[in-house]
Formats: sequence, C-alpha cells, structure tokens
Amino acid sequence: MKSSVKISDAVVRRLPVYLRFLNELNMRNVQTVSSQDLGLKLDLNPAQIRKDLAYFGEFGKKGIGYDVKYLIEKIRQILKLDQQINVALVGAGNLGHALCNYNAYFKDNMKITAVFDNHPSKVGTMINNLSVHPMSELARIVQEEQIRIGIITVPAPEAQHVANQFVEAGVEAILNFAPTIIKVPNELRVHHADFTIELFSLAYYLEEK
Amino acid sequence: MKSSVKISDAVVRRLPVYLRFLNELNMRNVQTVSSQDLGLKLDLNPAQIRKDLAYFGEFGKKGIGYDVKYLIEKIRQILKLDQQINVALVGAGNLGHALCNYNAYFKDNMKITAVFDNHPSKVGTMINNLSVHPMSELARIVQEEQIRIGIITVPAPEAQHVANQFVEAGVEAILNFAPTIIKVPNELRVHHADFTIELFSLAYYLEEK
Repeated sequence: MKSSVKISDAVVRRLPVYLRFLNELNMRNVQTVSSQDLGLKLDLNPAQIRKDLAYFGEFGKKGIGYDVKYLIEKIRQILKLDQQINVALVGAGNLGHALCNYNAYFKDNMKITAVFDNHPSKVGTMINNLSVHPMSELARIVQEEQIRIGIITVPAPEAQHVANQFVEAGVEAILNFAPTIIKVPNELRVHHADFTIELFSLAYYLEEK
Repeated sequence: MKSSVKISDAVVRRLPVYLRFLNELNMRNVQTVSSQDLGLKLDLNPAQIRKDLAYFGEFGKKGIGYDVKYLIEKIRQILKLDQQINVALVGAGNLGHALCNYNAYFKDNMKITAVFDNHPSKVGTMINNLSVHPMSELARIVQEEQIRIGIITVPAPEAQHVANQFVEAGVEAILNFAPTIIKVPNELRVHHADFTIELFSLAYYLEEK
C-alpha cells in the first residue's frame, strides 16, 4: 500500500462496505470470494470492485478470487483501523445511546471511549460501561485519552457550538449526526451522517403513483 | 423535469444534501444562491453542482444564481417529496426512538406513521405520538396506511426476518440500519444506513502517526 496515493472519497466510502461483508464471510469461515460474488451481494459492478481494490495492490488471484482474511487485513490497514482510534461522543440522548451500543461490533480498534452531555439529568449516568461527563471536561479528556474523532449527536441548534469545542480540544475529524451543516477549519475532516439523506433518496426510487 | 431520465445514484444521494442546505437558507430568508456558495458550503465542486441540477432543467440564471424557493420546490418534486409518503419503523429501541424524533424535521411529507416491535415491554408504549404495535399487525397496518417505505432498526440477527415481513406486507423500499446485509427481491430498493461506514471512512483521513 502506498499511503501517498490520493484515493477518491467514493472509493474510501466503499471500503468499509467491503469490510463489513468480508467480516461476515470470515465469521462463516468462507476462505475466498470473487469480485462477482462481492458485486452480487453489494449491488456493485465487479469491475468497479476490482478497480477499487487494485488501488492498494494486487490482492486477488485470477480464477480464485480474493483471500478473505488477507483482504480484511489489508482494508483495515488502508483505513488505519489496525491502530487504536479513540472516539468521543457528545449528546447522550437516544441516538447517543444507540451509537454506544455499536461499540460491541467494533472489532476494529475504533471505540467510543468517552461520552459527554451538559444536561444535569445525564451527567454521571452510565451508558454501557461509559460514564457521561460534563462538557467542561471535554478538552482535558480528549487530551488525556488521545481522542482523535468526535461524534456529535446533539440537536441541530447546539451542533456548531459542540463542533467548536471539539476543534479547540484538538480532534482531527468529526462525524456529525445533527441535521445541520457545521463549519470547521479546513484541516479537519467532517462527515455528515444524516439518515434523512438515505431516506429522501429512497423516495426517488418509488414508483410513480 | 423528465421523469424518464435515468439519474445516477450518486446524484440522487446529493439532492437531499442540497435540499437540506437550501431549507436552511430559506429559513434565513436568503432568496438566491450561487453554485459557488453551494460548493463552498457543501464541499463540492461548483461545476459538479451545476451539472447535477442541470439534469432536471435550467434552474439557475448566470450571474444571479438559483432561486432558493424554486430550487427547493423542484428538488422536492424530483425526489417525490411533494406527495405524502408513509413510513413504518420496526425496532423501538434507542435508534428507533431517535429516528421517530426526526419526524419533527420532516416538512417534506415523508413521515414515520407506524412503529412495531415484538418485545412485550415495548408493545403498547408510546413514542412521541405513535403507539408501538406488535409485528403481527404489520401487514394489516402497512396496507391500511398505504405505507411504502420500511425502516429496520432491530439487531443484526433479526434484520433479515423483518425485511421478509416488510416484503410480504408490500413495501416498495427499505432503509436498513442493522449492521448486516439483507436480501430482498430485485424490484425492491434497499439502502443501508450504517454509521460505521461514515466512521471508518473518516479514519482514512486521519494523519499518519
């Protein structure tokens, strides 16, 4: 893998999709998989899949396919999931709880390790094994726990303020679930996870009535 | 708008992103917006934005930009959000609750109108104004309320079974939040909303350490 290669965002977004399916195959003890099988399962063109994976080296073998375990290892390396990445979450509401429950799925060294909320009824409560901290402790805990990614699950009007605090605390990337657009300095990466986008784009594919 | 034009999935996925930002502009009484401003705010190439919107007709005016209200109306038409679309949700856990809370944001005629769960402790409880029904009522209610989209927020091992019940009940599309891949007949559209995909693809953009 050449880490200097510039890979398009669309490809980077597909790698976790491959990874999820490969992990399912691995759990079922499947050893190899063809780009045809991957394409059928993931509703992608097999040629597209081969091209995506070829960015990172020659993983597949003609007529045999990809070694599942090896491909998992490679994609985890490429996505930097072979290192521990600590994540902080702000907003201990229903969505915050739901996301903390995902921790169990993270065999990939990426974990929510700290939860914050400013509401007195939330501070000090437990979500799974995580204690909810007040926002005043964000900067200190981000530093101490070397947290690199922040997740925002507060209501839209509070999202920008939380983003600012994440930026000051020194996180490198933000995943924003609030249904609003937040502004951060250019050197930070922000992904918006807005389920309305998936839902509204589904509507396009409904039959005309 | 020619509804017969085949538009790529990537374009369809960007339309709700445009719509969200345009709605924010409209709330602030902004009348027009240029593709440059849209591009800056949404981190997209202005030429890409003009190309996306040109699929649907000539909305913009050189040197003035797009009329915000008109563009909102057009995108809502294109996405079929100008009609009432009823949605059912299965899985009244934390994520299900969080999604029902989004109903307040839906000025776009797409609404979660029914919630289902098979757990005795959930059935009969209220989420906002919605009563949680047992799964045995799914088929009847989907028919009666003309529900066209199903949302799955159950744990991964139950997702396929719920999908099968949605298919039998006659929904046209499914939004799956369970971190697993589900299989449905080809005529149905499935979108996977997996926040781990956003999170894992963020990791790629972290600095090498």
